[in-house]
Amino acid sequence: MDEFELIRRYFAAAACAHTNANVVLGIGDDCAILAPDPGQQLLVSTDTLVAGCHFPDPCDPYLLGQRALAVAASDLAAMGAEPLGFTLALSLPKADPAWLASFARGLGAMAACCDLRLVGGDTTCGALSLTVTVMGQTQAGQALLRSGAHPGELLCVGGCLGDAAGALSWVLGEQDGDCPPALWQHYWQPMPQLALGQALRGVASAAMDISDGLLADCGHLSQASGVNLQLQAAWVPRSPALLSALPEETSWECALSGGDDYVLLFTLPPERLVSLQVQGHRVYVVGWVQSGEGVQLHAPADGLICSPREGYLHFA
Amino acid sequence: MDEFELIRRYFAAAACAHTNANVVLGIGDDCAILAPDPGQQLLVSTDTLVAGCHFPDPCDPYLLGQRALAVAASDLAAMGAEPLGFTLALSLPKADPAWLASFARGLGAMAACCDLRLVGGDTTCGALSLTVTVMGQTQAGQALLRSGAHPGELLCVGGCLGDAAGALSWVLGEQDGDCPPALWQHYWQPMPQLALGQALRGVASAAMDISDGLLADCGHLSQASGVNLQLQAAWVPRSPALLSALPEETSWECALSGGDDYVLLFTLPPERLVSLQVQGHRVYVVGWVQSGEGVQLHAPADGLICSPREGYLHFA
Repeated sequence: MDEFELIRRYFAAAACAHTNANVVLGIGDDCAILAPDPGQQLLVSTDTLVAGCHFPDPCDPYLLGQRALAVAASDLAAMGAEPLGFTLALSLPKADPAWLASFARGLGAMAACCDLRLVGGDTTCGALSLTVTVMGQTQAGQALLRSGAHPGELLCVGGCLGDAAGALSWVLGEQDGDCPPALWQHYWQPMPQLALGQALRGVASAAMDISDGLLADCGHLSQASGVNLQLQAAWVPRSPALLSALPEETSWECALSGGDDYVLLFTLPPERLVSLQVQGHRVYVVGWVQSGEGVQLHAPADGLICSPREGYLHFA
Repeated sequence: MDEFELIRRYFAAAACAHTNANVVLGIGDDCAILAPDPGQQLLVSTDTLVAGCHFPDPCDPYLLGQRALAVAASDLAAMGAEPLGFTLALSLPKADPAWLASFARGLGAMAACCDLRLVGGDTTCGALSLTVTVMGQTQAGQALLRSGAHPGELLCVGGCLGDAAGALSWVLGEQDGDCPPALWQHYWQPMPQLALGQALRGVASAAMDISDGLLADCGHLSQASGVNLQLQAAWVPRSPALLSALPEETSWECALSGGDDYVLLFTLPPERLVSLQVQGHRVYVVGWVQSGEGVQLHAPADGLICSPREGYLHFA
């Protein structure tokens, strides 16, 4: 089985599982062809997952396929984009048919969830890693940037934080027993908040997704917008699964610094909050925006922590 | 130095070396934003280069930066696209400032040559590999596909073949002495034939770039178009550098099966050939299109080889 046959056989499902009217030409030629709707701009993001660094090796290839695409698609959600398609660069030590079939099924399942069609890629022989490039569209000028937050606005998140970090010790095999299913699912099957991101267009002043942990990503948003963020730890939502699975202190650690949440972080004028809530979006206010710089975390006991711990940094 | 600082420091030059009016937002947010011109479709291609598989390790990082982008941009040339931007997913065992600075300079030099702007990417810790995703645009319906060849047309290439394959034994350190500079340059600095590709829009019936070797890629074009290709080996252009560096038989091997050419392969009605030549494009007729299937290679001595050797296949 050569490279071309391998790609054809296992990724045909993800490529054809559903149609997307904006994909003119998919896999098989030198390039794919996408046709954004008139007046739309194109949004692009690339994410790499390396075995042993971003996920345990070995792991369930079905779950890996789901997670790799979800992580990348979350960047489209963060900008308020409508999904179009994605490419996959897959590096594998060997072409194992069972592994590939399972991986492609997981990838295809998440592709269908996100309305993203696989339009191209490359398969190479090497250490296991995956690079996904996602493409989406928004009306010109409507994309949500990190740089638009203003003093007087609210700081919000789109869901409970810390579940994926709470699952990590089980994911890595460091903890005995079964991982609580809700935590396990958040790590392996994070659902990109695409509908929330689209609802935030024209509503939020700034947005991003939380991948490095709430504190670190608040730092990124603060820097991009040139504002100070006041973060109230006591307002940060934690799931019942997280609270019952882990000690209080560890659950705070997971929710504030854990990373891998793929939940949206955004700012908006206070009067716009209700419009999101009546649409049924779950929005949690976790702080507010002030003039200045940096992030100040008000601890649950109302003390002030001046140097919040950073999130996960590669090469740190 | 954290991941974010590393990216900012070394890739700022490639990201900002030149402007591209179609890039609305570059590096630094969750996604980049591209604005194709009105009526244009978007073309996308992803290529991965793995150390020890697609290039020797160690190697000169400046040359690697050039080559990685050139290989990917050649897919835009093959479709007749105008370049817009690219993303880079770089996996590195460690963050070596000297290596990164040199790599980024090479990448930036090729980006300027191709009018491609670095708009995003990801840097991860792992075995050395690079995934480049290039994006370009063409007027709707004008992209050159592999599937349009018809019986009675000419089969052409856009330049001499085999130079990169001829350099390979020196590139891999298997041969003593200095590699002839023209061969060395073709391996490390292949120039994507973007201008030729754009000139082929509305002229060629089918096109692709030669990356797996002339014979293997003729097989791909033949299959996509549902035609038989008659290939005259004696008409395949070989450079003076290749002819003087290698024995006759080896030079044929390189030109017909060698791979890494990144020269365009295309078909067109005979009467359109002259329009390309008067525009100054070097076009070499290497055969013709018949009804049927597969590829027949007429050897230099005019014998018929029925089962031409395939090009390079991963996992073969």
